Amino acid sequence: MLMLPAFRSDPRIRLVAACAPREASRRAFQAEFGGRVYENVEGLCADPEVEVVYIATPHQMHADHAVAVAAAGKHILLDKPLAVEMADGRRIVEAAEKAGVDVIVGPSHSFDRPVQQAGELIRSGELGRIRMIQAFNYTDFLYRPRRPEELRTSEGGGVIFSQGVHQIDVVRFLAGGVGTRLAAMTGAWDPDRPTEGAYSALMSFQNGCFATFTYSGYAHFDSDIWMDGIGELGQRKSPQGYGAARRTLATVLDAQQEAALKTTRTYGAGDAPKPADQYEHFGPIVVLCDRGDIRLVPSGLHVYGDFEQKFVPAPTFETARTEVIDALVQTVRHGHPAVQSARWGLASLEACHAIIRSAETGTFVDLVEQVPV
Amino acid sequence: MLMLPAFRSDPRIRLVAACAPREASRRAFQAEFGGRVYENVEGLCADPEVEVVYIATPHQMHADHAVAVAAAGKHILLDKPLAVEMADGRRIVEAAEKAGVDVIVGPSHSFDRPVQQAGELIRSGELGRIRMIQAFNYTDFLYRPRRPEELRTSEGGGVIFSQGVHQIDVVRFLAGGVGTRLAAMTGAWDPDRPTEGAYSALMSFQNGCFATFTYSGYAHFDSDIWMDGIGELGQRKSPQGYGAARRTLATVLDAQQEAALKTTRTYGAGDAPKPADQYEHFGPIVVLCDRGDIRLVPSGLHVYGDFEQKFVPAPTFETARTEVIDALVQTVRHGHPAVQSARWGLASLEACHAIIRSAETGTFVDLVEQVPV
Repeated sequence: MLMLPAFRSDPRIRLVAACAPREASRRAFQAEFGGRVYENVEGLCADPEVEVVYIATPHQMHADHAVAVAAAGKHILLDKPLAVEMADGRRIVEAAEKAGVDVIVGPSHSFDRPVQQAGELIRSGELGRIRMIQAFNYTDFLYRPRRPEELRTSEGGGVIFSQGVHQIDVVRFLAGGVGTRLAAMTGAWDPDRPTEGAYSALMSFQNGCFATFTYSGYAHFDSDIWMDGIGELGQRKSPQGYGAARRTLATVLDAQQEAALKTTRTYGAGDAPKPADQYEHFGPIVVLCDRGDIRLVPSGLHVYGDFEQKFVPAPTFETARTEVIDALVQTVRHGHPAVQSARWGLASLEACHAIIRSAETGTFVDLVEQVPV
Repeated sequence: MLMLPAFRSDPRIRLVAACAPREASRRAFQAEFGGRVYENVEGLCADPEVEVVYIATPHQMHADHAVAVAAAGKHILLDKPLAVEMADGRRIVEAAEKAGVDVIVGPSHSFDRPVQQAGELIRSGELGRIRMIQAFNYTDFLYRPRRPEELRTSEGGGVIFSQGVHQIDVVRFLAGGVGTRLAAMTGAWDPDRPTEGAYSALMSFQNGCFATFTYSGYAHFDSDIWMDGIGELGQRKSPQGYGAARRTLATVLDAQQEAALKTTRTYGAGDAPKPADQYEHFGPIVVLCDRGDIRLVPSGLHVYGDFEQKFVPAPTFETARTEVIDALVQTVRHGHPAVQSARWGLASLEACHAIIRSAETGTFVDLVEQVPV
């Protein structure tokens, strides 16, 4: 649903086939795009017209699907996180390298235009060395409608694999990619939704910079007030929406009804979300460098220098997630691979596991699978 | 200079004597208050009319001064931090207990009215269990005029002992006081000012809550934009002030000239700062509880509940730091000791050292000197 506006409007994309277990989704795809539809991944893999497969299946299915698609010689756009288990992540890396296909792990908020802009500014050296990053995001993630496995950590549920991985991706992208050590504390505070809903982490990087990043999906406070009132998906938020997720959930009787509610947000089963009119974001981010700091907002960068501050606007917004298609075309057609490769995704997944391990053991965790930007 | 507006205007305070090595300070005191003046602490200690001594000497002198004052049977208001070395801190605790005098470690931002309000709200149970705190503060602290020892960590210089201790005090106050473990990373990034200018820490508490707190005194970004544009000392900030500290420092020739510049901010040697018209604060603070979150601002608390948000204003502001005098009077005259006792100060000092040790060793540090609110 969230990639569709870009898929629909971008002349570089043609949707020729789709695979989905739900008949309603397949019917909707045929009605809208007229392409071929498959009930299972084998059919899609055998389709000779398919060049790239966008895998947007639940996290725990990524490895099987990606390995099958890679073996068929097709490139892959793979929803974050790469996988849940590190072993599954490694299977994807190996399958892609063996088959010589490209993998982009995304969409992820590291593609957001202001994040890309900030990365360029940092790497230009204009502000001197990068020293410190702070990222945080307070949302009601845990109280939006969920399928049962989204509330089980072992299946990739909770905020660490689905939300933390965004923050890790962004922070790694800004800090140059190679984390060295991580310490974290986590919270699983709602017995009715028994998975991690919050964490805070410290992470050091090879270049000497460190980052602190915090997330709570239990929050009542909405940190988007510090992102110019723009929500994660680039839509302006209305004050009337206060408490909406908890209000809705309070009307839900059981897990089955809740899962059904979640399904209404999938393709062919409900209304599309309000289209974005700004770039997406993942909460307030501040980057400190020797000669200036950067604060990211949906419309660009606030740059605070020694004696002056300025605003560097992002390019005019057109369609949500066009950045991901840009990266895809650059990778697959022009030989300029995106930073967010399968190995990059493995490094971010490693940091997710390090958060859980550090919180469990009360120790710093060394990172060993990291790759640079 | 910063306590003076409260000392001057509060009918509960009479300044009867002062001790200062600088003649200009002594002369100014006599001219304004007509009391007795002393060149050294012994004279002040022997003054029979003195009931409480406010010790505002440099950190590394606190222990000698506090021990002398306690031995003379006078109560103490002691500028934070309690001391630099833990051994010095323990000397103060023991001297005060032996002499049966009260010690309040303050002023500190844990006295700020909105912090007090938030503590009451948390402990009322109205919002359920406290789960997580985030505090951060981005300032140009390291580029304000400093005496040389303020830039040497071993003498209590850098941001950890003079700024971190505020954050620790506030966070401990909100979280109930008893920290259990701490992990941190620090930065000492300016070779011309070779002390820690930034840190980020994770701290767990006995009640299960955890906190993350971050400070940079190297910052160009000023987090007061998220505190309604009010500075730490309760004064409205002007956009024209951007970069002022760095601009001034750029005109300073050497350490001697810089120390002289700092001296112009002491009593009797320069202009008083602009009077505050709001409560003081120490940067954005968000507290997450089970049934609601709190965001502190200088004028009160934003309280975000499950379905509604509200603003709870602080009592009308009158004079900066009246809260400290309230605590002093309650402690000394009414037998209701302030939370911020010498033992409390020792616990906050322990956390300062834990930040340094965790950053040096790359391990979590256990806290063993903690006391509850």
